[in-house]
Amino acid sequence: MVKVGIVGGTGYTGVELLRLLAVHPQVELQVITSRSEAGGAVSALFPNLRGFVDLPFSSPDSASLRQCDLVFFATPNGIAMSMTRELLDAGVRVIDLAADFRFKNAALWEQWYGIPHACPELLAEAVYGLPEMNREQLRDARLVANPGCYPTAVTLGFLPLLEAVVVDGMHLIADAKSGVSGAGRKAEIGYLFCEAGDNMKAYGVAGHRHLPEILQNLALAAGSAPGLTFIPHLTPMIRGIHATLYARLQKEVDLQGLFHSRYKDEPFVDILPAGSLPETRSVRGCNTCRIAVHRPGQGDTVVVLSVIDNLVKGAAGQAVQNMNILFGLEETVGLYNVPLLP
Amino acid sequence: MVKVGIVGGTGYTGVELLRLLAVHPQVELQVITSRSEAGGAVSALFPNLRGFVDLPFSSPDSASLRQCDLVFFATPNGIAMSMTRELLDAGVRVIDLAADFRFKNAALWEQWYGIPHACPELLAEAVYGLPEMNREQLRDARLVANPGCYPTAVTLGFLPLLEAVVVDGMHLIADAKSGVSGAGRKAEIGYLFCEAGDNMKAYGVAGHRHLPEILQNLALAAGSAPGLTFIPHLTPMIRGIHATLYARLQKEVDLQGLFHSRYKDEPFVDILPAGSLPETRSVRGCNTCRIAVHRPGQGDTVVVLSVIDNLVKGAAGQAVQNMNILFGLEETVGLYNVPLLP
Amino acid sequence: MVKVGIVGGTGYTGVELLRLLAVHPQVELQVITSRSEAGGAVSALFPNLRGFVDLPFSSPDSASLRQCDLVFFATPNGIAMSMTRELLDAGVRVIDLAADFRFKNAALWEQWYGIPHACPELLAEAVYGLPEMNREQLRDARLVANPGCYPTAVTLGFLPLLEAVVVDGMHLIADAKSGVSGAGRKAEIGYLFCEAGDNMKAYGVAGHRHLPEILQNLALAAGSAPGLTFIPHLTPMIRGIHATLYARLQKEVDLQGLFHSRYKDEPFVDILPAGSLPETRSVRGCNTCRIAVHRPGQGDTVVVLSVIDNLVKGAAGQAVQNMNILFGLEETVGLYNVPLLP
Amino acid sequence: MVKVGIVGGTGYTGVELLRLLAVHPQVELQVITSRSEAGGAVSALFPNLRGFVDLPFSSPDSASLRQCDLVFFATPNGIAMSMTRELLDAGVRVIDLAADFRFKNAALWEQWYGIPHACPELLAEAVYGLPEMNREQLRDARLVANPGCYPTAVTLGFLPLLEAVVVDGMHLIADAKSGVSGAGRKAEIGYLFCEAGDNMKAYGVAGHRHLPEILQNLALAAGSAPGLTFIPHLTPMIRGIHATLYARLQKEVDLQGLFHSRYKDEPFVDILPAGSLPETRSVRGCNTCRIAVHRPGQGDTVVVLSVIDNLVKGAAGQAVQNMNILFGLEETVGLYNVPLLP
Repeated sequence: MVKVGIVGGTGYTGVELLRLLAVHPQVELQVITSRSEAGGAVSALFPNLRGFVDLPFSSPDSASLRQCDLVFFATPNGIAMSMTRELLDAGVRVIDLAADFRFKNAALWEQWYGIPHACPELLAEAVYGLPEMNREQLRDARLVANPGCYPTAVTLGFLPLLEAVVVDGMHLIADAKSGVSGAGRKAEIGYLFCEAGDNMKAYGVAGHRHLPEILQNLALAAGSAPGLTFIPHLTPMIRGIHATLYARLQKEVDLQGLFHSRYKDEPFVDILPAGSLPETRSVRGCNTCRIAVHRPGQGDTVVVLSVIDNLVKGAAGQAVQNMNILFGLEETVGLYNVPLLP
Repeated sequence: MVKVGIVGGTGYTGVELLRLLAVHPQVELQVITSRSEAGGAVSALFPNLRGFVDLPFSSPDSASLRQCDLVFFATPNGIAMSMTRELLDAGVRVIDLAADFRFKNAALWEQWYGIPHACPELLAEAVYGLPEMNREQLRDARLVANPGCYPTAVTLGFLPLLEAVVVDGMHLIADAKSGVSGAGRKAEIGYLFCEAGDNMKAYGVAGHRHLPEILQNLALAAGSAPGLTFIPHLTPMIRGIHATLYARLQKEVDLQGLFHSRYKDEPFVDILPAGSLPETRSVRGCNTCRIAVHRPGQGDTVVVLSVIDNLVKGAAGQAVQNMNILFGLEETVGLYNVPLLP
Repeated sequence: MVKVGIVGGTGYTGVELLRLLAVHPQVELQVITSRSEAGGAVSALFPNLRGFVDLPFSSPDSASLRQCDLVFFATPNGIAMSMTRELLDAGVRVIDLAADFRFKNAALWEQWYGIPHACPELLAEAVYGLPEMNREQLRDARLVANPGCYPTAVTLGFLPLLEAVVVDGMHLIADAKSGVSGAGRKAEIGYLFCEAGDNMKAYGVAGHRHLPEILQNLALAAGSAPGLTFIPHLTPMIRGIHATLYARLQKEVDLQGLFHSRYKDEPFVDILPAGSLPETRSVRGCNTCRIAVHRPGQGDTVVVLSVIDNLVKGAAGQAVQNMNILFGLEETVGLYNVPLLP
Repeated sequence: MVKVGIVGGTGYTGVELLRLLAVHPQVELQVITSRSEAGGAVSALFPNLRGFVDLPFSSPDSASLRQCDLVFFATPNGIAMSMTRELLDAGVRVIDLAADFRFKNAALWEQWYGIPHACPELLAEAVYGLPEMNREQLRDARLVANPGCYPTAVTLGFLPLLEAVVVDGMHLIADAKSGVSGAGRKAEIGYLFCEAGDNMKAYGVAGHRHLPEILQNLALAAGSAPGLTFIPHLTPMIRGIHATLYARLQKEVDLQGLFHSRYKDEPFVDILPAGSLPETRSVRGCNTCRIAVHRPGQGDTVVVLSVIDNLVKGAAGQAVQNMNILFGLEETVGLYNVPLLP
């Protein structure tokens, strides 16, 4: 049994992590911290957990966390970096679901997140937790930077094209649509039911924090710095990301074969039959990324459709997948959920 | 392993049954029939089942069904009654998720469903599959009439009050709100996104088929024929029933204690702490009915709030619960799902 | 032309008032105040008003307000009462869309709103702005207390029954369902898209502020204090209230005729044909209350279904209707909007 | 007064046309036909029209239509072309909201719509009713082909760029998101609340009927045949199209100035301030197209965001705008609606 602690369990990433870990057969949930909710029952805040999670929230307390094998940070950006060093020194492994350890370059972090980095010396060690890119490095990782939701959907969609060098990597376009839970459980006007409901809009056009993260991934895949226009959109649904990716083909290739072959051994990437149109609800509540690849009118533009549940493969599910890899468990254990449809 | 067949797997009840049975550790799915989809892959119709259900739909075929231990009917009303006799004679047990066997009185069936009953002689034998009322009879049942969604939510809410004879049973009111999936997966204008979305309305005010079903249940609980005004409402959500029940108290009673005591051994009825306000999403995807009981202003009107997922405790989940009871399995096996929130 | 000022134009009531007044042919919009948004363009906050409202928000400033013929308060509870005396003294008429002047009894105000009343001496003069009850008094009113949304829908539904003394007034039940805009444009977790979406729940069961307001209305109609159980529900739609009202008949009566006759001269109450089921979307964006009256199974329980747009007849539209009455305009001017469907 | 007839008033385009025409001060509604609903009250089908439209549906009847000044066809594709010749000969002008007269090339029609064209000789005369392109020709038109919803949003967004020849016209990308009402009021499984709700998916990737229509427009604007990848997406909202357009810049240009200057005299195109992010709800119920133009990271990709209400500027509103032009009325009369927000 892996003894697990969660720091910051009051957001959507936290409750989703609890949903998955509560029934994970090889996890023992030790402690869930929340400064604001300390002392309250987790199930009072999240009534879906009644009968599954009996723990109360406790104050962030390094002693109890140091007794865990693994600590997940489901905190806002900038928290994990202040506590990770101490936990690693105590032999605890860490998976951060925020952005603190996603960049290799501390200056890039500071530019996009506006906070000096508390432990830049750990950035080199941290493994970016996209198993489809970094599975081997993850096996021995002490510190995992769990990817962002958009970066997961977009990277998995572009990866085969860039690795095979069949498209113009300098003019990629990612038009992404996210459900509102991607914004987190924050009391902001813009995410009210009456503001985000029955409405569609783009945001972050001038520069979204996930842009440099995606670029870092794509550069690794392509072997050189790519060019990407990334336009995220707020969509009136609760969960789900639908990324529609556009690239210009530079050589003839069997696209369907390329994608199948790249992901044939991946338990959580599902390449759909040619002509398919993935729906976000087809992955609601599950850790799978479903991808279809198209070439409209047999022209030179390839269109990749990539869907994930932003809270699962885009956050908590991927974190559990990373945990399974870190601790040598079967990679799919605890993640064998049938998506909820309708 | 229970060898299971499903007749009519193309509706929401069918796909939900498949979601639950696909990962049930003691079930072997043998056959899924659909006249309209025969030959097609189940996962082509329901993309959430990709990787979980490999069976194709087959034509309704008594030979393959006769080799099952249990056949679920997830068909429109009036189908099960034409095939049940033959299956029972072949030693197959039957759980009907439609209404064919819910009434003890064939005339009542004919009045409300407008079709002569094909096997009225089986009505006496059929056990109404609400385990909280009929668990003992279910253990040996050959034929189970799985309850309707509204009847489940309303009956469980009124049951303690009527059994304890503490309210005026002649003037009960059930104001129920259902998600749109309760109408099934039918191509009808009224259930389009643009008709049912961002809208609320009552329906069936002049008489809904679930009214006599509820009355039959309440009469058994009360020991005499009750009076009920039942007003269902179509609510712009996908899953969930919220039943708000009103009754006039006729004697002093510890309401909270009464409900706790009635359901203390029930694995799928959760009595919430005093003052609670259950939400439908707190049971999304799970088999639990959550109930809160209130007495506003300490007056003589008791208000019971009862929520279920209409497709789980109101249909497929309850059917699996009944299957578990019929075959002597642990009652909760395969139903230990954490509700999806948000 | 009526010179109009609005205090507090940043909530949903404010923007709705602006939507209606911007195209009202006999209104000249003079000033819109907002402490938090002062200096900003109204249309920057509410992009639907681009091209219709060119005014900026200004600081609350009694000088500019004193030059108006009429000031609307679209503020939180407790603001209007601190500014009304000065405006009335300057000859400005006031319509308060909040609750400050709804109760005749200052103690009742303090009990439910938890703030001492700043000008209890004005409560007797204030006219409760439900034209269907108080049209004559409104003609000469200086100060109008615009009704709450639930009180409007519920009062209009019960009024004919209580005035005609045909039901048991001591055991009335109002089961009301409101869209989320009823909660206002407030940054609170509970009204986020991911909290209120795809979900239904009751709230305020222990006592909602609209309960004493409804009781005050019903007492006037009935001639004596009634008894009411009022259970509001949060419904995943943006606009709309659906009130389902239950009462016990005490004498035979032609219900359809009673309702028709009570409201035959009312421009904004529409009694539907017998057997109708009103939908909230049938009044989306308009000032009409649509009502259907039923007697299920010809029993002794009468069921009234009453729908309004909570932001129009339940707030801003009714305020404009009151303005029209106060200033001797045609009552329907500026309110002749066709509801938006779908 | 323009005497108006509507053929086929039972879809969303029809009810929206009725919403606008019912309060248009210079229109006299003479006849509304529907084969399926003949004899029924329009307001029984569309309860929002109660009190505004008293006409019943009548059978399609050329005599009554021939007495109109103008007939709108709000019918499925292929109906208008069978009746238009007769009406034109009788001196009646025609605006077809379907696709029958949108293509100049009958072969193209037959390829995409799969029906032989009934009157190809009228295609040359028909004026494509996008006033921003064809206002002068519309003034004297007898026959107007009202544009499709996607073509309106996409064409208006690309127009300034192509006319000024500042982008690579051979590699345009239009990623468009539509509300479900774009699919019409049709009883099809895919548009049910429980299928289209809480879900996002692309469709028509292999070829959507609006692609050749957009290409025809863009070719006129560019002076040569362009290349376009067009990916429409079904979005869980009722109304609205959000088109996100991508093009590669080929010369330096003041984008904001270019768009302002192109549309400065257009009453229904609103160029937003630099940096703006238009929302579909900002045009809900109104005839305006709002456009913002961006150049992310000052790279060579221009991103245009264009929003319309698909039922208004994308259908019925644009048809009314065309009617106003045809009959020499003020172009905005009857279209001065403030969008409904929230």
